Amino acid sequence: MAEAVRLGEDARGTTAPNPNVGCVVVADGRIVGRGATQPGGRPHAEAVALAQAGEQARGATLYTSLEPCAHRSHRGPTCAHLIAEAGVARVIAALQDPDPRTAGDGFRMMRDAGIQVDIGLNAESAAESMGGWLTRLRLGRPRITLKLALSIDGKIALPSGESKWITGEDARAHVHLERARCDMILVGRGTFLADHPRLDVRLPGLEERSPRRALLTRGEPVEGWEVLHAPEDVFRLSDVNDLLVEGGSATATAFLAADLVDRILLYRAPILIGEGRQSVGYIGLDAIGDAHGRWEARDGRQLGIDRLEVYQRVRPA
Amino acid sequence: MAEAVRLGEDARGTTAPNPNVGCVVVADGRIVGRGATQPGGRPHAEAVALAQAGEQARGATLYTSLEPCAHRSHRGPTCAHLIAEAGVARVIAALQDPDPRTAGDGFRMMRDAGIQVDIGLNAESAAESMGGWLTRLRLGRPRITLKLALSIDGKIALPSGESKWITGEDARAHVHLERARCDMILVGRGTFLADHPRLDVRLPGLEERSPRRALLTRGEPVEGWEVLHAPEDVFRLSDVNDLLVEGGSATATAFLAADLVDRILLYRAPILIGEGRQSVGYIGLDAIGDAHGRWEARDGRQLGIDRLEVYQRVRPA
Repeated sequence: MAEAVRLGEDARGTTAPNPNVGCVVVADGRIVGRGATQPGGRPHAEAVALAQAGEQARGATLYTSLEPCAHRSHRGPTCAHLIAEAGVARVIAALQDPDPRTAGDGFRMMRDAGIQVDIGLNAESAAESMGGWLTRLRLGRPRITLKLALSIDGKIALPSGESKWITGEDARAHVHLERARCDMILVGRGTFLADHPRLDVRLPGLEERSPRRALLTRGEPVEGWEVLHAPEDVFRLSDVNDLLVEGGSATATAFLAADLVDRILLYRAPILIGEGRQSVGYIGLDAIGDAHGRWEARDGRQLGIDRLEVYQRVRPA
Repeated sequence: MAEAVRLGEDARGTTAPNPNVGCVVVADGRIVGRGATQPGGRPHAEAVALAQAGEQARGATLYTSLEPCAHRSHRGPTCAHLIAEAGVARVIAALQDPDPRTAGDGFRMMRDAGIQVDIGLNAESAAESMGGWLTRLRLGRPRITLKLALSIDGKIALPSGESKWITGEDARAHVHLERARCDMILVGRGTFLADHPRLDVRLPGLEERSPRRALLTRGEPVEGWEVLHAPEDVFRLSDVNDLLVEGGSATATAFLAADLVDRILLYRAPILIGEGRQSVGYIGLDAIGDAHGRWEARDGRQLGIDRLEVYQRVRPA
């Protein structure tokens, strides 16, 4: 299942509005088929993995990070149907599909066809990987990740605006990987005018994975860039699972003040800047006590001399 | 040796101007004597451990975190002499004494008396524990530790000055332990006026370990507080091994701008403050490139929901 989730994670940023599912078919202890949701959302991961497995799928076990679909589409048969037809003996799924068009029907159809179905293996990592799509279903907007590159003392630049480079190469490579796995990247007008950022993915083999670019501005549109007039416009982004907000401070502050950040990827360099540009401005906080319980440290690791800190917004389920 | 270093570390903050040495005597695989430098610097750790071991020291192995002293004092015989007289067969020392009055003479005297001497075990942790005293010998001033309690975005308080509480109980208990192991704590006039901090040690059994209190101010002295008019006054503190600078922002900035911070203990709470008081102001930095290579992350660990980050100033040896 870990392999299925990994395949899905590699496809993150390419499958919207569909989920980035991964699937593995195992026969006689060997992987005979691998698949992930294809760019644009079709074919589904299960169809890809079954096509690769061919006749070896008969009697095999199929691992998938999400319940196979049960709702018919003009674009092909349902995955639950394909799996039954291929003669798969057992299906192990990480998550049930919360989409009301499937929501357990996929599992039911397969059990009716005599397939053994088990649910819940690696559910947490699958939910994390498909978090963008799940957020869209639950909240009607993308999962929003705020990226910050900060000094020890929380600054993003010198007073002059100079910020190249706070973090080192390993941290910047990690940012490029995260870009490849988002559907859209957003910056503010200030960052756009100051840096004319390319926001592309500069990683070997992933150059084609540069996501859509958006600008947060009340002003005129710019060619090649989509425009959001306010953070709340994220509710109009129906085909974006993962949105990466890259700054600067005014943009980060606007999204945080609107409580429209789900995850913070913070790259912390072991430097002190002192007088400089702050990372976050007024976000509506008037008492320290109110700041607590909103963020949870989820991950922390070294990236060269820098440290990645991942915080997740704590929300009632 | 780890136990000897630990005994010395427990005595840190009480032995200035002498080093906080720890010593263990082992006979037949059992610890028969333990000692640490006593408050005020005498008796020395070796004398305490040998007194406890008594006749069992004959033929035993003595572990000490620092070379036994070889310079006579009106306050008693040298430790090298005591060790030879007790009939110790072997001495294992973590560090050679850089004090020119001993500087290898202790080892020489013991070897001349037929004792086997080995040097270097646990040298790094011993040097860390006695870093205050070593800094005083090398730089003519205490080791200076800056304590910061910060939010994710590097703020120390709301714009109103409210800072209670950014960090949780585990982090605050750690601060109290660090206080107990310093000889002197310093705050700025602003923090003094705003908070009238007690700067005492509120840990069971360590209440007596509250260190001397100092104020960084150009103004009038305050009863019960020593006064430093500028960070450079630390060079006049001949009897302080470890100085803990507790803030606020102006004080932290003054010490950092003077390059008079050796170590940063940063307690990072998983909260965002946004608009608020910055931790560090202008420290003379005019290019990001110049900020790199000055600080090294040395330790990082969770203290409840907060994280302790320890940074050490990188200086040429």
